[in-house]
Amino acid sequence: MSLTRTSSSALRVAVIPDSFKGSATAGAVARAMAEGVERACASARVSARSAVVPFADGGEGTLDAICSAWGIEPQRVAVTDALGRPAEGRYAVHTVEGRTTGVIEAAEANGLPAVSDVPLQPQRATTYGVGALVTAALDAGCEEVLLCIGGSATTDGGAGLLQALGARLLDSSGAQIGPGGGALADLSHIDTEGLDPRVPGLRWRIACDVTNPLLGPEGAAAVFGPQKGADPQDVIELDAALGHFADVLAAQTGQDVRETPGMGAAGGLPMALVSLFDAEIAPGGELVAEVLGVQQVVAEAEIVLTGEGRLDSQSLGGKVVDTVRRLTPDQTPVFVLAGSVEISAAELDAAGLSAALSIARGPETLNQLSAEAETRVSCAAEQLIRIYLSGRAAHRPSA
Amino acid sequence: MSLTRTSSSALRVAVIPDSFKGSATAGAVARAMAEGVERACASARVSARSAVVPFADGGEGTLDAICSAWGIEPQRVAVTDALGRPAEGRYAVHTVEGRTTGVIEAAEANGLPAVSDVPLQPQRATTYGVGALVTAALDAGCEEVLLCIGGSATTDGGAGLLQALGARLLDSSGAQIGPGGGALADLSHIDTEGLDPRVPGLRWRIACDVTNPLLGPEGAAAVFGPQKGADPQDVIELDAALGHFADVLAAQTGQDVRETPGMGAAGGLPMALVSLFDAEIAPGGELVAEVLGVQQVVAEAEIVLTGEGRLDSQSLGGKVVDTVRRLTPDQTPVFVLAGSVEISAAELDAAGLSAALSIARGPETLNQLSAEAETRVSCAAEQLIRIYLSGRAAHRPSA
Repeated sequence: MSLTRTSSSALRVAVIPDSFKGSATAGAVARAMAEGVERACASARVSARSAVVPFADGGEGTLDAICSAWGIEPQRVAVTDALGRPAEGRYAVHTVEGRTTGVIEAAEANGLPAVSDVPLQPQRATTYGVGALVTAALDAGCEEVLLCIGGSATTDGGAGLLQALGARLLDSSGAQIGPGGGALADLSHIDTEGLDPRVPGLRWRIACDVTNPLLGPEGAAAVFGPQKGADPQDVIELDAALGHFADVLAAQTGQDVRETPGMGAAGGLPMALVSLFDAEIAPGGELVAEVLGVQQVVAEAEIVLTGEGRLDSQSLGGKVVDTVRRLTPDQTPVFVLAGSVEISAAELDAAGLSAALSIARGPETLNQLSAEAETRVSCAAEQLIRIYLSGRAAHRPSA
Repeated sequence: MSLTRTSSSALRVAVIPDSFKGSATAGAVARAMAEGVERACASARVSARSAVVPFADGGEGTLDAICSAWGIEPQRVAVTDALGRPAEGRYAVHTVEGRTTGVIEAAEANGLPAVSDVPLQPQRATTYGVGALVTAALDAGCEEVLLCIGGSATTDGGAGLLQALGARLLDSSGAQIGPGGGALADLSHIDTEGLDPRVPGLRWRIACDVTNPLLGPEGAAAVFGPQKGADPQDVIELDAALGHFADVLAAQTGQDVRETPGMGAAGGLPMALVSLFDAEIAPGGELVAEVLGVQQVVAEAEIVLTGEGRLDSQSLGGKVVDTVRRLTPDQTPVFVLAGSVEISAAELDAAGLSAALSIARGPETLNQLSAEAETRVSCAAEQLIRIYLSGRAAHRPSA
């Protein structure tokens, strides 16, 4: 790649922020940034060419960010929640360059907040409702699905989802077992004959940012069970039931995935999909980046602008900012805007980030910053680009 | 002047901030900025050449800023306060390129805070104590003195200062009149025979940011008297006494300065000096800039970094930021750091400022920002320079 010095040539900016959690969606942040870039360039009489890609790391808000990046609204479909009650869930389907991809946040159907109105039932909570989202995506012609699994209320190893897709989970008497992880103790055999025939042909990609194995002290029940309502006895029983599910799957498929990193995420949800459908499991940021073509966007940019609500050392471990930096060519500056900047310049250097600015314009409360996040983001982006363009047009008096 | 494109050549930065009032002196702010610049340049492997000039607009803190710029400590001398009580006052003397200049903040001897422990006496408060500062400057060999006059408790037209320098202000019986503006009603004649012979040869330069005339509804007594304790009757009497002083001075010197803009500042203090010694009166920022050679410093800079506690529309009317911008060549970017940024990008454009950043790193109280102002200034300067240098090293992928 040849490098050309720039002066007043157009500024190509890739705008790829995370949401500012609790304040603004990734789409809103990205639009605000692009507006600031536009104003700064207009003031400097430089033409702006912004590529705007709201981004997410596979966690909450990923569906919104991807829809915003695609310029579509999510679809809605009837689902059931983790306790089997009727609910509505969102998903998205979009075709890019001939390839149709579905995006599903499992928590739209098995999420913890939706069942927090009643006592938690960790042994009964099921991923069954997620099946309606997958089916809707298949009906819309998806060849691949990006499944985000965070925020679940379930610890069923993905058993409910299998059932919803047509598999029968049978006990020793040949009857279907009940819903939830606890009932897996009764599982004897998985009958996949009735499985939706489109399911095995689907490319499953699971966004997962934890590396926990399925079982044991670092497993799904022990680590994540308590926040889903599991008491110590529940943890013991769920761990045993998931282990039994793994045994049955291993016996039927010939491969044992219980030690594979990530199988302990979301109550073991990945296990069923990895065992039966060879689902891929990867960090959310990477998968979202692939779905949105971030790598091509940053390759064409002179600078990259990203951001998130709070930039701290966590941000540098696989989250959006880190992913953006990793995908961006080394010589291309990456700038970060954040509600709160909590890392040092040395940490910026170590992370390969060129600079980070807060959107605060003086002493202000979190509520003020949050309520006006979009305006502040826009202003901060404008100031950042003004400074950058000053440097870009640098001259100096002759000595 | 020829302009040369820069890439990795040394970055020449002129660092010329105001104090952050209540948080950090101009000297401390300037040092913090220079440290941030240094770190950013080191990280980018660009050598930094900072010219550091703590700045002030002639108001409170000017003596400190100039001493810091000169790298000296202020001197101390016994004075009297506006009520004639013993006190200590500071002044500075420094020789630059063979010229010895004294810097005096009159309020060190006639200031309002120093007499706020007792009931205010607007008619008796005197500038007499300022004479000890002037005499000390003369003793140190000053050829010129920069006299900053804000914050006074006095409304005596500079009469007390004249007396302290050896003039005798006589009533019709040939006796010296009492202290303060009220006693000027008794003035009959000014005897300058005993005046310190060095005084008329001194170049007097008065820093003054108001344009009020001496008398009337916009004059010294009416506008500034009340904050010095004058009730309506005091205002009437002081206005009349100052008018009489102006009459006597005009009769003796042949020139009447009462309508000259600025004569109403600091209780009329400039009048005596302008009438008798042809003192110059000019905006404080301009005079301080001249004393510190700011114009030469900015002429040699690639960029200028300034700042103040609060950047608002007032900042753009003759204060430090405005003065720095005005003295800086048009094509040289001026960047502002502030505790609080309260102007829009359009106002920045109109004022010719390239960008402004707050030192806040997230939601924080004024107390937090203030307590850590120097660290924050240093970090903000560092981020600003990092962004600037990214632009300066700009390259872009070939199309």
